[in-house]
Amino acid sequence: MELVVFGLLVVEMSNTFGKLFRLTTFGESHGDAVGGIVDGCPAGLELTRNDIQKELDKRKPGQSDLTTSRKEGDRVRILSGVFEGRTIGTPIAMVVQNEDVDSSKYSRDLIRPGHADYMYERKYGFRDYRGGGRSSGRETVGRVCGGAIAKKLLERIDVEVFGHVTKVGGIECSPSIEEIKKHSTENKVRCGDPDKAEKMAERIKSLGDSGDSIGGCVEVIVENLPLGVGEPVFDKLEAELAKATLSVGAVKGFEIGAGFKSADKTGSQMNDPFRIHEGKIDIKENDAGGVLGGISSGEPINIRASVKPTPSISKPQKTVNLREKEEKEIQIRGRHDPCICPRIVPVLESMVSLTIVDLCMRSGNLPVDKINDER
Amino acid sequence: MELVVFGLLVVEMSNTFGKLFRLTTFGESHGDAVGGIVDGCPAGLELTRNDIQKELDKRKPGQSDLTTSRKEGDRVRILSGVFEGRTIGTPIAMVVQNEDVDSSKYSRDLIRPGHADYMYERKYGFRDYRGGGRSSGRETVGRVCGGAIAKKLLERIDVEVFGHVTKVGGIECSPSIEEIKKHSTENKVRCGDPDKAEKMAERIKSLGDSGDSIGGCVEVIVENLPLGVGEPVFDKLEAELAKATLSVGAVKGFEIGAGFKSADKTGSQMNDPFRIHEGKIDIKENDAGGVLGGISSGEPINIRASVKPTPSISKPQKTVNLREKEEKEIQIRGRHDPCICPRIVPVLESMVSLTIVDLCMRSGNLPVDKINDER
Amino acid sequence: MELVVFGLLVVEMSNTFGKLFRLTTFGESHGDAVGGIVDGCPAGLELTRNDIQKELDKRKPGQSDLTTSRKEGDRVRILSGVFEGRTIGTPIAMVVQNEDVDSSKYSRDLIRPGHADYMYERKYGFRDYRGGGRSSGRETVGRVCGGAIAKKLLERIDVEVFGHVTKVGGIECSPSIEEIKKHSTENKVRCGDPDKAEKMAERIKSLGDSGDSIGGCVEVIVENLPLGVGEPVFDKLEAELAKATLSVGAVKGFEIGAGFKSADKTGSQMNDPFRIHEGKIDIKENDAGGVLGGISSGEPINIRASVKPTPSISKPQKTVNLREKEEKEIQIRGRHDPCICPRIVPVLESMVSLTIVDLCMRSGNLPVDKINDER
Amino acid sequence: MELVVFGLLVVEMSNTFGKLFRLTTFGESHGDAVGGIVDGCPAGLELTRNDIQKELDKRKPGQSDLTTSRKEGDRVRILSGVFEGRTIGTPIAMVVQNEDVDSSKYSRDLIRPGHADYMYERKYGFRDYRGGGRSSGRETVGRVCGGAIAKKLLERIDVEVFGHVTKVGGIECSPSIEEIKKHSTENKVRCGDPDKAEKMAERIKSLGDSGDSIGGCVEVIVENLPLGVGEPVFDKLEAELAKATLSVGAVKGFEIGAGFKSADKTGSQMNDPFRIHEGKIDIKENDAGGVLGGISSGEPINIRASVKPTPSISKPQKTVNLREKEEKEIQIRGRHDPCICPRIVPVLESMVSLTIVDLCMRSGNLPVDKINDER
Repeated sequence: MELVVFGLLVVEMSNTFGKLFRLTTFGESHGDAVGGIVDGCPAGLELTRNDIQKELDKRKPGQSDLTTSRKEGDRVRILSGVFEGRTIGTPIAMVVQNEDVDSSKYSRDLIRPGHADYMYERKYGFRDYRGGGRSSGRETVGRVCGGAIAKKLLERIDVEVFGHVTKVGGIECSPSIEEIKKHSTENKVRCGDPDKAEKMAERIKSLGDSGDSIGGCVEVIVENLPLGVGEPVFDKLEAELAKATLSVGAVKGFEIGAGFKSADKTGSQMNDPFRIHEGKIDIKENDAGGVLGGISSGEPINIRASVKPTPSISKPQKTVNLREKEEKEIQIRGRHDPCICPRIVPVLESMVSLTIVDLCMRSGNLPVDKINDER
Repeated sequence: MELVVFGLLVVEMSNTFGKLFRLTTFGESHGDAVGGIVDGCPAGLELTRNDIQKELDKRKPGQSDLTTSRKEGDRVRILSGVFEGRTIGTPIAMVVQNEDVDSSKYSRDLIRPGHADYMYERKYGFRDYRGGGRSSGRETVGRVCGGAIAKKLLERIDVEVFGHVTKVGGIECSPSIEEIKKHSTENKVRCGDPDKAEKMAERIKSLGDSGDSIGGCVEVIVENLPLGVGEPVFDKLEAELAKATLSVGAVKGFEIGAGFKSADKTGSQMNDPFRIHEGKIDIKENDAGGVLGGISSGEPINIRASVKPTPSISKPQKTVNLREKEEKEIQIRGRHDPCICPRIVPVLESMVSLTIVDLCMRSGNLPVDKINDER
Repeated sequence: MELVVFGLLVVEMSNTFGKLFRLTTFGESHGDAVGGIVDGCPAGLELTRNDIQKELDKRKPGQSDLTTSRKEGDRVRILSGVFEGRTIGTPIAMVVQNEDVDSSKYSRDLIRPGHADYMYERKYGFRDYRGGGRSSGRETVGRVCGGAIAKKLLERIDVEVFGHVTKVGGIECSPSIEEIKKHSTENKVRCGDPDKAEKMAERIKSLGDSGDSIGGCVEVIVENLPLGVGEPVFDKLEAELAKATLSVGAVKGFEIGAGFKSADKTGSQMNDPFRIHEGKIDIKENDAGGVLGGISSGEPINIRASVKPTPSISKPQKTVNLREKEEKEIQIRGRHDPCICPRIVPVLESMVSLTIVDLCMRSGNLPVDKINDER
Repeated sequence: MELVVFGLLVVEMSNTFGKLFRLTTFGESHGDAVGGIVDGCPAGLELTRNDIQKELDKRKPGQSDLTTSRKEGDRVRILSGVFEGRTIGTPIAMVVQNEDVDSSKYSRDLIRPGHADYMYERKYGFRDYRGGGRSSGRETVGRVCGGAIAKKLLERIDVEVFGHVTKVGGIECSPSIEEIKKHSTENKVRCGDPDKAEKMAERIKSLGDSGDSIGGCVEVIVENLPLGVGEPVFDKLEAELAKATLSVGAVKGFEIGAGFKSADKTGSQMNDPFRIHEGKIDIKENDAGGVLGGISSGEPINIRASVKPTPSISKPQKTVNLREKEEKEIQIRGRHDPCICPRIVPVLESMVSLTIVDLCMRSGNLPVDKINDER
């Protein structure tokens, strides 16, 4: 069908995430810098450059032969909000310069299939076409900066957030939580099952070599989240997590607990029974994925995201030249990840952490005396 | 594991949806009334009680032998915001009295598996246990009131939103858009394939008779949405739709376009090519589901929700008595839908419509001169 | 100068106040009903119809010979959010039917000077002209409903909010806090100085009899607010109070502490010195009005509002007929207060209370265990 | 009275201003940098570093012998959101390094009267005491960065925002709009009356020399704002302007139109009559200050702020040592403005411009085709 735009656009953008714990990100792929500001972080949290850098390094390009060869040091600078090694309650501004920028491979007019080039051109009337501009995956640097601070806060209340790749190109695995914790940071696919990780890596490599790319699934688990987090009826825990997940480029699906399998279950199969365990009320199974009625149940949260294959492929594709309005063939050169899943893991961990911290603050589950030992 | 709550709860609730077009809902299942206020509706829209009532009737209990026998007229009253048959730009308050309330079957202490009883008790310290209170599906009356107004606005710019049941208890169908439009309002399952609808109905009935319930999938399609709707990087169209969808009780998963199938695709399969069609730039396929980079592409939006089986079943279940802290057996009497999917269709249509209208206003795609002929 | 409107209006309205403790109001002067929904109220607060009614009665028309003779019972109904005499954390919907409505005196075309008739006509393209519609003072019923709940919450942490009239038509007074508490609820002007109250009443009556009206000043004091409330740099305590105050129709000015007098002071006069008093750090004077750097200092907050004379006067005034675009004379009949100050006192108390509760929740100064004895 | 803090603080901060056009600021006085991010700016606006620098230069310290001698180049860097000289709709990040930092004069323990030192210490438990940290006037650099972009947008729809000093230490003036435009940028007091400006300068200088400081009043005028801007009932134009004004440190009062004088007026004096002027409906006088019912009337907006004397004075003052809890004497050395009014003018212009742009976007009064000639 024809693509229509109404005459007048009040062009808005929404680069702030969260209500009490808020991250605002900025930056284009081939612009001066990328980064973010965290506003609403409690005072007294120990925070250093390294806490942020550590998380950025997990997302950094050029980590292995599976990822893009763009060389970015991704060195973060903290401009404000930290004094003598602790947060002071004021906005924490973080900046990462763009370094290894090569805009020569990008065309203003040849719109790339599967990318947002044409939508930005039409919506904003004018765009930074270099490297995809704001719609590039490089935008997630700001998310990881913010997520690193969220993780530090969650550590203080013993909440753990960790992700891993569960599927790539049809190869699937379902390791135990122990296996995930042990293995997913060891291999370049970020998979909890070392054997499957090897097979996945081969598949990614072979598809990349053939000029194509492949999708996959990423799971994120939240352990030890207290009961009571999530704000019905609209800001339910799972609703906010779904938004956080789908806000990441390339994600096409979200599920929690039994997810799409719950469609095939009966009530007697799906309902997790309550019991008394060691003198306390407890839930025996966890098909719900750690939420009931939009509120955390105290059980582990588990969510899964479906990630589409990287749209940048070097195989020839059919497209259109914007200016000449003619059909053309495009071969995307640049440097791209044949499978984005391994590098999406830290991004989804960040988005989940940001969501959890914000909701914890909204429900009073992030007490200041836990954040700062000295209070 | 044990369920822990930190000492101090700043109990928040979030009953407002939207940024410029905002719906605030209220009401408990067995309280006085349920309803909602729409703030931000443009002035000059023709609106009558019947426009709202028509949508409420689609969600009303007691419509067929597949749904609960609770008898609610669900007659809506408009208290404000409409004058001489048109909106005046001020808040539109809508109220529906609760009528057929029978609280005798509900226990304060015996928490129901799969329900939010225990989470509300712990989070708020005190709850209206009758009929599930605020966590009841009855809460969605307010959503449908708001959704009805959103639909009226979308009609003015020729955007159509319609849902149907694609799966129940393993029975699946994939009708064409024409079939969906034709059949899904005709049968009591709200399915676009009449043959499958019959099989689904049998399955629902037989499970209901055995005291159990069953889950399913619901799809919502948006046709004719102009290019340009959605606000990257955090308020992407799919992110807001995911939140809207997961904010509905019983939903455990969300996907858009190829959804979870995109995990198994290669880039060359997934990328929808651009072409010139009748002199205009156009997208040939729609694996993306009508969005690119978080912005509507002009192609139809299609999203799917996974819906868990109704947790209220009359089969005996294991649970716990809150006061005595003892394991007990529970058999839920009351009147319940053995499959909530048919009645979730109008609710999801409402949530999608509310989301689309809000984002259209934010991107300037809902011009006042389209809303009001006289301007 | 000429009044210009740009072509396309995305007509928004903003009828929600607050971030965590949120009031949404609705209703037109001569519509079906007015009221509001409070969302975000902590669970467990004792709340009855009477708590709301008590505050509404202070605002009610027809209380004395100084106020409009419109007879409104202003009986509030609570539709949700309260169970067995306590709040349950869910939205509290409150409705007041409009009863004594007489629309015969209002003209669709003859716009009233000093009123919003013409602005609504142009902004929304279509308006409820009866009784001023949404721009009527009757809109404040919803504010007082919400304010009543806010006051109940503040009582639990021993914070007191009270207002009084300090000036009417040039007659001014500056009673002590004790005098204000003692006298301002006794006389019909709501003034803390009984002698001045009498003179003010005479002045109001004589101006009313002559078909004119008069302005005045209202002060609101907050006692016992803990240190730490207010969120720099933009949501400072005084900034939020200023917005709350100016959001009330007829208010044209706001000041806190020394207010406009601070313009004439030197630093050595204005700076309130710190001291040690009974072993604690303390502030000796209070020119700052209870705030420093946007944060409450623990000292009493005092703010003052300048209130313009009621624009509805029966004296002949020059105006214009909208339809015929001709200059006309208008004499406003209806029933109006010759001085709105006495009835604005409970409205400003409400707005200040709403602001303080919201900011207390945002800074963690409204602990749940103070709200609910049983937790 | 004693200053009390409740046990648990959910420390929030609010460094974002606006709803659709949003500014987020960051930075401490003696930290690494200050600045801000503008999100929601329409694409296609011509914007250069100089547009921002020009406004920053008006606020810069060390401009005359009336201002602090701190030497800050205040050179702004734009990190994102601008491409080939135009905005692209994405966040515009702006950073200004702190250069001439001298923290030696600041004490961690000796709290300064009239400053926020003690409130920050108690609220956040830990603070950057150097130069007042986040509560310093240096925070307004970020506001001016954002305001510069807002001004550029307003220029496109011919709206002019300009401020001037109307009063210093009892010396008052009331120049015509022409005089203000002509003179207020010529003299170092930023006053529209050159004779009075000279007297004010003398007064400021003499007080500064004596180690004291002085307050004053600043007026901001908005010309050519179209009718229809402002969102009743809570986000009225005057309410948002009041919040914007009071959010600036040192401001203790706000008035619009007749302001506090309206308290002494009768309705027949205050009501601005409508008339037909050159064939159009028009308002003859402007006691209302350009607003009716919270909506712009098309007449010029005029607001006034009361500014307290700079709290930093070198005269000896009584205070307290935080650690030792002993009364002490303090003499503030550092480099400070004896009257902050001249430098507050660009800050208030910025806040008013930010407010107006945001409300224009919310009411559809900032059409994209006016922003970008090429669309």
